[in-house]
Amino acid sequence: MRPVVIAGAGMIPFERRDEDSLVNMMAMAGLRAMDDAGLGERPVDSVYVGNMASGLFNHQVSVASALVDRLSLMPAAADRVENGPASGGSAIKNGFLAVASGYYDVVLVVGGEKMREVIGPRATDIVACMTHPLAEYIYGVTLPSMAGMFARLYMEKYGVTRKHLTQVAVKNQENGLLNPYAHIQMKITMEGTLTHPQAHVNNPVVADPIHLYDCCPVSDGAAAVLLTTEEIAKELGKPIVKIAGVGQATDTHTLQERNDPTELKAVKIASQKAFEMADLGPDDIDVAELHDAFTILEIAESEQAGFFELGEGAKALEAGETRIGGRLPINPSGGLKARGHPVGATGVAQVVELVWQLRNEAGEHQVEGATKGFSLNFGGFGNNVLAFVLRREA
Amino acid sequence: MRPVVIAGAGMIPFERRDEDSLVNMMAMAGLRAMDDAGLGERPVDSVYVGNMASGLFNHQVSVASALVDRLSLMPAAADRVENGPASGGSAIKNGFLAVASGYYDVVLVVGGEKMREVIGPRATDIVACMTHPLAEYIYGVTLPSMAGMFARLYMEKYGVTRKHLTQVAVKNQENGLLNPYAHIQMKITMEGTLTHPQAHVNNPVVADPIHLYDCCPVSDGAAAVLLTTEEIAKELGKPIVKIAGVGQATDTHTLQERNDPTELKAVKIASQKAFEMADLGPDDIDVAELHDAFTILEIAESEQAGFFELGEGAKALEAGETRIGGRLPINPSGGLKARGHPVGATGVAQVVELVWQLRNEAGEHQVEGATKGFSLNFGGFGNNVLAFVLRREA
Repeated sequence: MRPVVIAGAGMIPFERRDEDSLVNMMAMAGLRAMDDAGLGERPVDSVYVGNMASGLFNHQVSVASALVDRLSLMPAAADRVENGPASGGSAIKNGFLAVASGYYDVVLVVGGEKMREVIGPRATDIVACMTHPLAEYIYGVTLPSMAGMFARLYMEKYGVTRKHLTQVAVKNQENGLLNPYAHIQMKITMEGTLTHPQAHVNNPVVADPIHLYDCCPVSDGAAAVLLTTEEIAKELGKPIVKIAGVGQATDTHTLQERNDPTELKAVKIASQKAFEMADLGPDDIDVAELHDAFTILEIAESEQAGFFELGEGAKALEAGETRIGGRLPINPSGGLKARGHPVGATGVAQVVELVWQLRNEAGEHQVEGATKGFSLNFGGFGNNVLAFVLRREA
Repeated sequence: MRPVVIAGAGMIPFERRDEDSLVNMMAMAGLRAMDDAGLGERPVDSVYVGNMASGLFNHQVSVASALVDRLSLMPAAADRVENGPASGGSAIKNGFLAVASGYYDVVLVVGGEKMREVIGPRATDIVACMTHPLAEYIYGVTLPSMAGMFARLYMEKYGVTRKHLTQVAVKNQENGLLNPYAHIQMKITMEGTLTHPQAHVNNPVVADPIHLYDCCPVSDGAAAVLLTTEEIAKELGKPIVKIAGVGQATDTHTLQERNDPTELKAVKIASQKAFEMADLGPDDIDVAELHDAFTILEIAESEQAGFFELGEGAKALEAGETRIGGRLPINPSGGLKARGHPVGATGVAQVVELVWQLRNEAGEHQVEGATKGFSLNFGGFGNNVLAFVLRREA
């Protein structure tokens, strides 16, 4: 396999963007990645779009064909890749394979989702379309309710408390305040969220023990990376950030079929694959972007991906090890919790953040001296997971 | 790039399948492809699903994750690829790249669509979601109406007549009668379709000059191929059918922006790429599966892909050159016209048909001695096209 380098990265601020169509958002992000790479007149061979549900959110399909026209990149190939909330990660993986194979030299990967085109309850329903139609969806299960059940089990098994969940929210919203691309720009405190007499008003229960501030917001947004060969990246003159490791794994469609639902097998296997390919281990990583669609997931993933022993993730969080400046900063961008989670955009936005971190371009939320990054994009409720290891070359 | 071989192929009959879910249909096709390859206990590394609009047709997303569970292939990777009516072709291309890259050794590609879960007018609307939302969809343009406008232009420019269009329908429905997987099992005649006093009843206008019998039906169905390396294919002991050429190209999203809307640039470029990669030309091909969603498309594609000079495709058809037994049999399967067009399944079904043809397993619709095949999967209205050249190795 040819090595694959990320020569350009760009995104647009995640927020509610009523004025922009999905395709326009993706075009803006794509242009930023191409500009960042200094691509100039060099042709793009193929465009990959990560998007979960443009049909249901926007009554539009074939958005990759629409994007390639919007960017005037014809006759470049264009495909949309869908893998629920891991659509962005899957798009990057397939762009990676396209360059690695030698078939294409320059590939643009854009993740995007426009979720605010429908009203709130309908957005929750559309997201729930990733659950099993007969074993889950039909009974009214939504992603927040799954997260509630998962959180309860995980808390009982590993001594995680609501205080820990809230610490994830407080940390990530603090990081989000340093990231101009983050949707949620609001400081919250432990006291206001947990113990203040008005806490139940600010932070009501969504699906016990998950409260409002344990959930990512519903956002519109897009992010993009430009993938190419080492040779072309050197010609373009950008710092070399290599996709050193790629892993993907699936687990049972439904949570109920897992022997131990607290074990996220697909997270474990995908992470192991990515680390093995990169010939690195969790201890080598300087910065990680994990899929904190719900606060419990950041804690669980930090353990299941191998950064902490089981039951130690919450302690590391409490000790400040996962803050910017800590031993392993997790979600310096603010994560899904604060940056937002336009589903198809997320896996790409995580990688954009890592590129900025590894190039020392992350501004106020920079992790000093980071050269190796890890991202985890979590599809379904852990039934289809992507992991990436990125490395800045000297 | 490593050579990629199709070691297994399978599909289920296309028809209205109220009793089967999309995922079950895809599982049945996938099992047939794995059985056909004699895969046994050998693991599948990755599953690619070609599907256009499971969200809109079936209120379900993440169907690749659902399929990998249904087939008990975890922790295999799983991604859905969407490219409108060329979703199946795009899924095969990405499966091809995954094996060609060396990252995966055994990849299952399944195309499927369950369109009859919604009532007819809604199916036409869902298919129209691939058009431009502001330049086309908003004005009520549907795919049949585009085909009508395209047909009128092509007929005027190249002397194609309604008689020629009907000859495509008659030929392909004749071929469909020989194919147990074809949805439409009905003989039609030139006279009953064109000149009989009741012809306007049997075959009413849909979008002038396109009549009912010029359109493919709305079908449910799934098809699958198993891709692997030459070494593994030899171990499995199956005849070697190689993916010798792969081409994909895009054109403007809207027809109106093309200088000459009768020129299908993406068909031309995708075909040229596939032929160049295979080091073959149109004259080397023994059998072709073209994307006759509308009869005019078979004629236009046969010219634009290079099999006939411009204006000569209809003459070749009239002379019987494209029948089974003719110089270049086109759509011996019955094509989209008779086999049916469950959108995401089509690009895969075309390749399944070619595999059967090149292995001399096509039964009553066998093209004698075929060793080289070509398929064309047409997305949007020609804005995103995939072409494949398959070769049976000695």
